Amino acid sequence: MANDKPVVNPASDGSQGKVVLRGNAVIAQSGGPTDVINASLVGAIKELVRSQEIKGIFGSRHGIKGILSEDFIDLRAESPRTLDRIAKTPSAALGSVRMKPTTEDCQHIFDVCQKHDVRYFFYIGGNDSAETAHIVAEAAANANFDMRVYHIPKTIDNDLCVTDHCPGYGSAARFVALALMGDQLDNRALPGVKIDVVMGRHAGFLTAASVLGQQRGDDGPHLVYVPERPFSLDKFAADVKRVHDELGRCLVAVSEGVEDEQGRPILESGERDSHGNLQLSGTGALGDFLVQTVKERVGKDLRVRADTFGYLQRCFPEVVSKVDFDEAMQVGREAARAATLDERPNGSVIIRRGGTAKTYLVSYGLTDLENVAQKTKKLPDEFINAEGNGVTEAFRDYATPLVGRLPRFGWFKNKPIA
Amino acid sequence: MANDKPVVNPASDGSQGKVVLRGNAVIAQSGGPTDVINASLVGAIKELVRSQEIKGIFGSRHGIKGILSEDFIDLRAESPRTLDRIAKTPSAALGSVRMKPTTEDCQHIFDVCQKHDVRYFFYIGGNDSAETAHIVAEAAANANFDMRVYHIPKTIDNDLCVTDHCPGYGSAARFVALALMGDQLDNRALPGVKIDVVMGRHAGFLTAASVLGQQRGDDGPHLVYVPERPFSLDKFAADVKRVHDELGRCLVAVSEGVEDEQGRPILESGERDSHGNLQLSGTGALGDFLVQTVKERVGKDLRVRADTFGYLQRCFPEVVSKVDFDEAMQVGREAARAATLDERPNGSVIIRRGGTAKTYLVSYGLTDLENVAQKTKKLPDEFINAEGNGVTEAFRDYATPLVGRLPRFGWFKNKPIA
Repeated sequence: MANDKPVVNPASDGSQGKVVLRGNAVIAQSGGPTDVINASLVGAIKELVRSQEIKGIFGSRHGIKGILSEDFIDLRAESPRTLDRIAKTPSAALGSVRMKPTTEDCQHIFDVCQKHDVRYFFYIGGNDSAETAHIVAEAAANANFDMRVYHIPKTIDNDLCVTDHCPGYGSAARFVALALMGDQLDNRALPGVKIDVVMGRHAGFLTAASVLGQQRGDDGPHLVYVPERPFSLDKFAADVKRVHDELGRCLVAVSEGVEDEQGRPILESGERDSHGNLQLSGTGALGDFLVQTVKERVGKDLRVRADTFGYLQRCFPEVVSKVDFDEAMQVGREAARAATLDERPNGSVIIRRGGTAKTYLVSYGLTDLENVAQKTKKLPDEFINAEGNGVTEAFRDYATPLVGRLPRFGWFKNKPIA
Repeated sequence: MANDKPVVNPASDGSQGKVVLRGNAVIAQSGGPTDVINASLVGAIKELVRSQEIKGIFGSRHGIKGILSEDFIDLRAESPRTLDRIAKTPSAALGSVRMKPTTEDCQHIFDVCQKHDVRYFFYIGGNDSAETAHIVAEAAANANFDMRVYHIPKTIDNDLCVTDHCPGYGSAARFVALALMGDQLDNRALPGVKIDVVMGRHAGFLTAASVLGQQRGDDGPHLVYVPERPFSLDKFAADVKRVHDELGRCLVAVSEGVEDEQGRPILESGERDSHGNLQLSGTGALGDFLVQTVKERVGKDLRVRADTFGYLQRCFPEVVSKVDFDEAMQVGREAARAATLDERPNGSVIIRRGGTAKTYLVSYGLTDLENVAQKTKKLPDEFINAEGNGVTEAFRDYATPLVGRLPRFGWFKNKPIA
């Protein structure tokens, strides 16, 4: 059993009073994987290996499940070359988990941490993971076990509080923007009504990103429905009819999480995970239902199709925003740096935006875990149009720098033959 | 009314006996758009503008619909810079159509061609489009109207006869390969059963491409079902159970076109287009049905999800195979070259494969329109494994050069902590 009191001594750089906490570090990944969650992992590892105080760097396999079962791998055994490759590999290289620890689980986590002299705990994930980190940190404090606990933000939904935006969002948003760029060209070539169902349980950031590739006035998506506004089938059908009457085609982006006036999902599959989240992805039912709605209410002979982007949005190789990748690596580094510099005993890494409308600049910081745990940020009102069926310039200004440069297409001038 | 007899005179290069057919050219695009169908269009235009005999180069909007309605644009009015950009723009820049001309339509097409002195007709599309070209060529011959008619191959399904492969396939196959590369990492991180429904009405080439990114022995997809083999729900459930028992997860790629022993689609939506094709894409119903099948027959508590890739596969920007792009441009050039050199009065451009297993080389040629019209190439037997649930090395050898270089991922060595 390791000593559970921290050692206080001068830091190696000669500064006084720094609390040096010697011991091992554990890092784990949780929730839905992304294109850049491994960049955060590698960013943290690269910073941790430089620390004199940290001995072992343990990778826990499949999140806290790996801690509970003591399934650790030695991350010091990996070469810089491997780490660089893993940083650029989508999904969670340590494996992931969707699991909310019980009080009993938390006690077990401390037992394992004490047994293995784990003093540094890094959990990469979304607001569920921040909650897990918060529970672990509180349980550690209650047990008087000195452990530094950091949440490293990750979510394609971009729904974490305090931070300006979340690593993972930029690349998933890039996928959605590119998908709609291709799809709206498809919809021009073979006109009809097309409905694209985009991920986003409670927050419409990803669905809103569908507009980011628009280049011409009549480029789709023509209608964008986010979960922050009640979704009415009557309004939807009327909107589609109006656009189709005007353009002879209509492209719709709709969040999988849209709900009616009473807050009920438009369609429920019934399955919930251990966090109580409803299963919305991995089924085409909402898209198919909306296709039927258009056929019944707008026109039965219309060509109406739906695609549900599903899991393709989160781990697609080579569709990665460079800004997102760099920031994902940096939030990992920041967590490790905060831990080893003893800036705070725990916290969640945040990204702050500086710069102007023309220059994109960020800085990094920490916020308390409880500010992020299980809270959900919504798309702000100023990002949604008055009609509730589109997004604003303010959203474009916010999201454009995050997805990276999008391709510019060519257009015929369409000079008619006399 | 233009003279409908060809002018025979010496070619400008001094060769004797070449039939110089002066007049205008029409080019059109048809069927489902692809990432590279505009490269074929631009390849043809770039060759046509060099011809002395060809006066106007007319772009028909939305395939033969544009001819019937005399909706032409002047392609000579476009700058090389615009053409280069359009070549790299997904979807069909002229617009597309799904329309099988009636005998009356064909007569109308000739009337319009005669009226506009159109002597060169280029139709970019799949086997339906080759059929249209064939009908038009026959009707022209019957009417003793000298018109050169060429089909320029395009289809993501890769199901055209005679040609080794079709432009459009390589890029769509690259999308599928990359999607599965990401999805199998996702499936490793959060294990469960995942079903990916891939386009391909009758031919399994695109579904088979799901394996092309595999790097390690247990990489998914673990099961691949193509329409060339009858699909049995019993066998499917047993296969999934076996893989899941062995690996704790299972990733499946299945063609949207799979049929049972009696040749009935596993699921029908009932809607057919004017070619009699069943609507298979733009609905998530097959995936959802297979999810239910796994839950009912393998385990109700399993985490089972499905994604239906749908239209994302065919026009996704930036997911383009360079080989595919270059070949798409070249088949356009070849058609125009054949027309202006009077090699054959009509035909469909084909790609022949030369080289060895290590070197990929192609040459181009022409085949009769009737060899391609409405015929469908299936995945050859030697590309499908004996069990009918996977593909062979021969398929990998065939398809690997077509999709371009795929990323290589990093892997932890997973050294356990003592």
